[in-house]
Amino acid sequence: MVRFDGRNCDEIREVKITRGYTVVPEGSVLIEIGKTKVLCTASVEERVPPFQKGTGHGWVTAEYSMLPRATEVRNQRESTKGKLGGRTMEIQRLIGRALRSVVDTSKLGERTIWLDCDVLQADGGTRTASITGAYIALVDAVKYLMHHKVIENDPLMDSIAAISVGKVNGQAVVDLAYEEDSKAEVDMNIVMTGSGKFVELQGTAEGRPFDKTDLDAFLTLGELGIRKLMESQNKALTAERGR
Amino acid sequence: MVRFDGRNCDEIREVKITRGYTVVPEGSVLIEIGKTKVLCTASVEERVPPFQKGTGHGWVTAEYSMLPRATEVRNQRESTKGKLGGRTMEIQRLIGRALRSVVDTSKLGERTIWLDCDVLQADGGTRTASITGAYIALVDAVKYLMHHKVIENDPLMDSIAAISVGKVNGQAVVDLAYEEDSKAEVDMNIVMTGSGKFVELQGTAEGRPFDKTDLDAFLTLGELGIRKLMESQNKALTAERGR
Amino acid sequence: MVRFDGRNCDEIREVKITRGYTVVPEGSVLIEIGKTKVLCTASVEERVPPFQKGTGHGWVTAEYSMLPRATEVRNQRESTKGKLGGRTMEIQRLIGRALRSVVDTSKLGERTIWLDCDVLQADGGTRTASITGAYIALVDAVKYLMHHKVIENDPLMDSIAAISVGKVNGQAVVDLAYEEDSKAEVDMNIVMTGSGKFVELQGTAEGRPFDKTDLDAFLTLGELGIRKLMESQNKALTAERGR
Amino acid sequence: MVRFDGRNCDEIREVKITRGYTVVPEGSVLIEIGKTKVLCTASVEERVPPFQKGTGHGWVTAEYSMLPRATEVRNQRESTKGKLGGRTMEIQRLIGRALRSVVDTSKLGERTIWLDCDVLQADGGTRTASITGAYIALVDAVKYLMHHKVIENDPLMDSIAAISVGKVNGQAVVDLAYEEDSKAEVDMNIVMTGSGKFVELQGTAEGRPFDKTDLDAFLTLGELGIRKLMESQNKALTAERGR
Amino acid sequence: MVRFDGRNCDEIREVKITRGYTVVPEGSVLIEIGKTKVLCTASVEERVPPFQKGTGHGWVTAEYSMLPRATEVRNQRESTKGKLGGRTMEIQRLIGRALRSVVDTSKLGERTIWLDCDVLQADGGTRTASITGAYIALVDAVKYLMHHKVIENDPLMDSIAAISVGKVNGQAVVDLAYEEDSKAEVDMNIVMTGSGKFVELQGTAEGRPFDKTDLDAFLTLGELGIRKLMESQNKALTAERGR
Amino acid sequence: MVRFDGRNCDEIREVKITRGYTVVPEGSVLIEIGKTKVLCTASVEERVPPFQKGTGHGWVTAEYSMLPRATEVRNQRESTKGKLGGRTMEIQRLIGRALRSVVDTSKLGERTIWLDCDVLQADGGTRTASITGAYIALVDAVKYLMHHKVIENDPLMDSIAAISVGKVNGQAVVDLAYEEDSKAEVDMNIVMTGSGKFVELQGTAEGRPFDKTDLDAFLTLGELGIRKLMESQNKALTAERGR
Repeated sequence: MVRFDGRNCDEIREVKITRGYTVVPEGSVLIEIGKTKVLCTASVEERVPPFQKGTGHGWVTAEYSMLPRATEVRNQRESTKGKLGGRTMEIQRLIGRALRSVVDTSKLGERTIWLDCDVLQADGGTRTASITGAYIALVDAVKYLMHHKVIENDPLMDSIAAISVGKVNGQAVVDLAYEEDSKAEVDMNIVMTGSGKFVELQGTAEGRPFDKTDLDAFLTLGELGIRKLMESQNKALTAERGR
Repeated sequence: MVRFDGRNCDEIREVKITRGYTVVPEGSVLIEIGKTKVLCTASVEERVPPFQKGTGHGWVTAEYSMLPRATEVRNQRESTKGKLGGRTMEIQRLIGRALRSVVDTSKLGERTIWLDCDVLQADGGTRTASITGAYIALVDAVKYLMHHKVIENDPLMDSIAAISVGKVNGQAVVDLAYEEDSKAEVDMNIVMTGSGKFVELQGTAEGRPFDKTDLDAFLTLGELGIRKLMESQNKALTAERGR
Repeated sequence: MVRFDGRNCDEIREVKITRGYTVVPEGSVLIEIGKTKVLCTASVEERVPPFQKGTGHGWVTAEYSMLPRATEVRNQRESTKGKLGGRTMEIQRLIGRALRSVVDTSKLGERTIWLDCDVLQADGGTRTASITGAYIALVDAVKYLMHHKVIENDPLMDSIAAISVGKVNGQAVVDLAYEEDSKAEVDMNIVMTGSGKFVELQGTAEGRPFDKTDLDAFLTLGELGIRKLMESQNKALTAERGR
Repeated sequence: MVRFDGRNCDEIREVKITRGYTVVPEGSVLIEIGKTKVLCTASVEERVPPFQKGTGHGWVTAEYSMLPRATEVRNQRESTKGKLGGRTMEIQRLIGRALRSVVDTSKLGERTIWLDCDVLQADGGTRTASITGAYIALVDAVKYLMHHKVIENDPLMDSIAAISVGKVNGQAVVDLAYEEDSKAEVDMNIVMTGSGKFVELQGTAEGRPFDKTDLDAFLTLGELGIRKLMESQNKALTAERGR
Repeated sequence: MVRFDGRNCDEIREVKITRGYTVVPEGSVLIEIGKTKVLCTASVEERVPPFQKGTGHGWVTAEYSMLPRATEVRNQRESTKGKLGGRTMEIQRLIGRALRSVVDTSKLGERTIWLDCDVLQADGGTRTASITGAYIALVDAVKYLMHHKVIENDPLMDSIAAISVGKVNGQAVVDLAYEEDSKAEVDMNIVMTGSGKFVELQGTAEGRPFDKTDLDAFLTLGELGIRKLMESQNKALTAERGR
Repeated sequence: MVRFDGRNCDEIREVKITRGYTVVPEGSVLIEIGKTKVLCTASVEERVPPFQKGTGHGWVTAEYSMLPRATEVRNQRESTKGKLGGRTMEIQRLIGRALRSVVDTSKLGERTIWLDCDVLQADGGTRTASITGAYIALVDAVKYLMHHKVIENDPLMDSIAAISVGKVNGQAVVDLAYEEDSKAEVDMNIVMTGSGKFVELQGTAEGRPFDKTDLDAFLTLGELGIRKLMESQNKALTAERGR
């Protein structure tokens, strides 16, 4: 079965990663996966949240937002509404947990790395693109800290990337575009380390419940897709950039 | 290995379900799982959210809250803070999706069933206890609607229950108490239908990533635990109650 | 004249007090007056509000909330609305002032006792039931503090309870149920100490103004009702409970 | 015993009432009681709150606010804080109930009269001055409506005024200035109709509980004070004003 | 051409300035320009905002608000809405910047002067009247600080006043009343120092763009109007007042 | 005198305009002026604000926001703070007024064009770049509406662009970068139509007041700069783009 955009079931969309997209942040990455465009920046702040104070450990946290016209229909800004929606909160908590899972915060010192993921254009998979792009911004920020001798030892313990899988028209597929996402029977986000282990697994039956056989198909497709994303991450990271 | 409270790895805590705990709501269930106590009420409202208007379909939604002293340390009320936290939003969205997955909203008519899950005492597993208890409140509300001829056909397509599984001290366990939850390496919530299919699967590596073998162990334990919860649900539902 | 539920004008509803309803708080009381059910917990916090800092004095404060389906028609949560309503603020200020009036804060040390009154089911008189129940939770918290040698001298100077009186169909009655409250011409809340003095007196002519003769009738009925509540309080407090 | 400002216990402060202080509102009254200055305006709006719609009845409601430097120490604006405090809510609910109690809303038609009470300078008794002044603004708004034939029959059923009484240094006094209010043992606000009946009675033991004898003294002093306020109201209302 | 109220194009409305309108603030001025009435108070606070801490410099800031019935149609309070509108923010930022421009904050010491401008009645030109009145309140507060030896050297470097100019029916006019303001083609606010220099110039083409010739006419009219306002300021300041 | 970045006083920074930067909106323009990068999108909504309903006229409005790390130091998101700051409100009101001034809303029909200006990188002049870029997005949205026969007649009456001028180190300069803006004595924003008339003129003396001679220099420099911006606008608009 061919998908609406001609892809095979196990085929991810084209990935384009631009490091140093803006020049001010310690890390700044524009990640494009198909039409989805997310600007991921990493900002170092020389303090930690209250619960980390005095522990000698650092912190990694994320914020996620969509520009109002990232989507087909314009969305009201959450700043205008005066509060964050549940979807935004869920996503930024997920991104933060994911990135924290590969950082040894004891090597970061008492400082915070903020990962801001701002969706310029949304065509499905914005949360997984955010994780995949934020990882590169995080690497750049860590390099910056080590280059300037702010920290001595690399706090990164592993690499990380994420992808969506799901069931559309009874068929398991990877890297769903909005067209597919909006009518998927099951939608699952998988976050995996470079060493091939799970960090997050979030599967939701949107239309009908799924069984163990579906799950196995999702995991296989997801791992394949994440491997391809990691190749793109590695290629982007080998090209040097300065600040 | 015996757990901190003497349970085996595959043993869930004692379950106590009180139907009609309060007399006003169409469904009102106090569910106690170990020391965790959640009051789940189902309220029928004769209108639907704007996006469902004119569709002929109904809606099922959930709200979740903890009393300030449900926990060891008193928490500030979200009403006093002026906004819902991310954790609350995540949980109530999960409960809503879970319960909706077993309802044929076309048979509900243009009305909403609100499932309010208020945690009176929290000792781990409050979100899964909420789903398990809210299902019974939902059944009672549906019975109420059918008894009063408000709806003709039963909109419930399946039963549903949920449980937490995780890895504590390197060991997979089911139905984590707070003592275990707070130091779990992996924490996973499983929502399953009576027909044994997955509705939600949310696994998070709190401490270290997990692999396929861990996942298999979690799913096996989870299914076992959910079977036991469903026995408690069935037993509670066979005893008659009025309103 | 017999009332809608068969009571005489000077007859209060059945009172049921359960100490230690939840096990975590320093004081935890479920008070049931007729169908009105309020969970009152007392929580000790080792700090005081800014205006008490450095005075050596403690503080006692209260928060009040109703579960959304405590009432016949479901109410929107104040946490969802993003702010407390005027009624809630009025009531929690009243409860706080009432309980503070029997505490010698100089004997409490620089700590706060939070009294959380959460209405599980509302059938009139929730604010007076909250005061009556919170007093017992406060006693238990004080016992806890003295038992653990946190404080040396009992800061409680008197006992306290509260009741509603009013005029319904031209007749003065005590302890109004919602059925009566909703059509009362006058509604008055009386808070009294064990020594028989007034702490608060709040009378409102809902329908028509009242005169001195009405007031005298209200005070007589109120005092009688409060005496009966105090008997229930005393009985509950003689039975031992632990934590 | 002479009071700090030379007054006798039963003596109220000088009262000055300026009708038409601002020219736009249907009623606009600057009331000065001692140093307390409140601008009370009455505004007619041609619609009612949702709960009154279709009843043919009108509505009367009040809002209360203090300018930030009405008090000795500047207070932060509630508009800047982003929410109303409990004290403000309590007071504006009291003012609204008080004024509604003398209006036959069926004669008002489906329109709302807003009573805005803005305290320009606060020296005790701002809520009672607000009620006393708002009554005159209400009279002017009603005259305006009748003069313009918007309504035919006078909806005012009685006049209304309010005063504070209390116990200071063991002595019952009327019309407390801030100096007295801040150290009163008991503080009571009395709202009374021209026909000498109670509309509201709110007594609070700030320092020590009070008994029936105290209460009788308060009521006597309060009635005397209110009589004097009503003389000032009548005098102000006999002088003509236009718009 | 004569204006709607009989004024010439270069004629400002009658100005009335009352110092010490309320007695508590360090500076308190009621300024009336035509029917526009603004109460401007100056309050000294013995601390500065975080960004000024430790600099030895003081701060001057302003807040602006309109009473709900200052205008023909009643406006909802911003405290009730829960947030400040854009217009309010714009105006209070303008007032603050304007007054700060004539203060040498190094001579003020680490303290803040709050300028509260509350519009009791609005008939056009409320922001410029606020600046003109707040200057006098500021002078009084500075006198108070110097009289009480809190500061030694006068921090005021110049005087300041403001006026509106605009184009109505193709004609440049000064000091627009609401009647004119609401249909002006161009509306410009000019803030000027006593030494005749510009502090702020804010011109907006409401209806049609304007050119250099218009601008010159505005500036000439504006300077003339401001000179007249400054005469009123000086006259008010020569009359002594105490506190 | 040469400026910090080598520019002459009357020299603007390099301008780069990318139409169709994102593909979903009716207009989408990335404007880069020096290091300042703003994404301006135009979105058509088929309804108008309440005050325009039934008039047959359309509406044009703007929203402005900065990504948190658009600046050297990361700023907290306004969505997280729960409210818009005064600066944001001021700017988005300015952008909205500016663009509305060149639109004949009667030709737009009852629909709204939203202009969203999101600053990806900020190096001074973000509000003027927003106006200059939003004009192009607006042109594209109008072309879209005309191409799809939604509207018949071009509602655009003129073109529009904006620039900042100011006084830095006693020297008048155009198009200030952040380095200059932060220490400018005077800062002025000029919005001009293609026909060379003023739409907005906002000059603020940050450090010291300015006189008529300064103003003349600012206006000359501003007009020159705006002419250059308009050349860039025209060049960008001649290249075709599709959607």
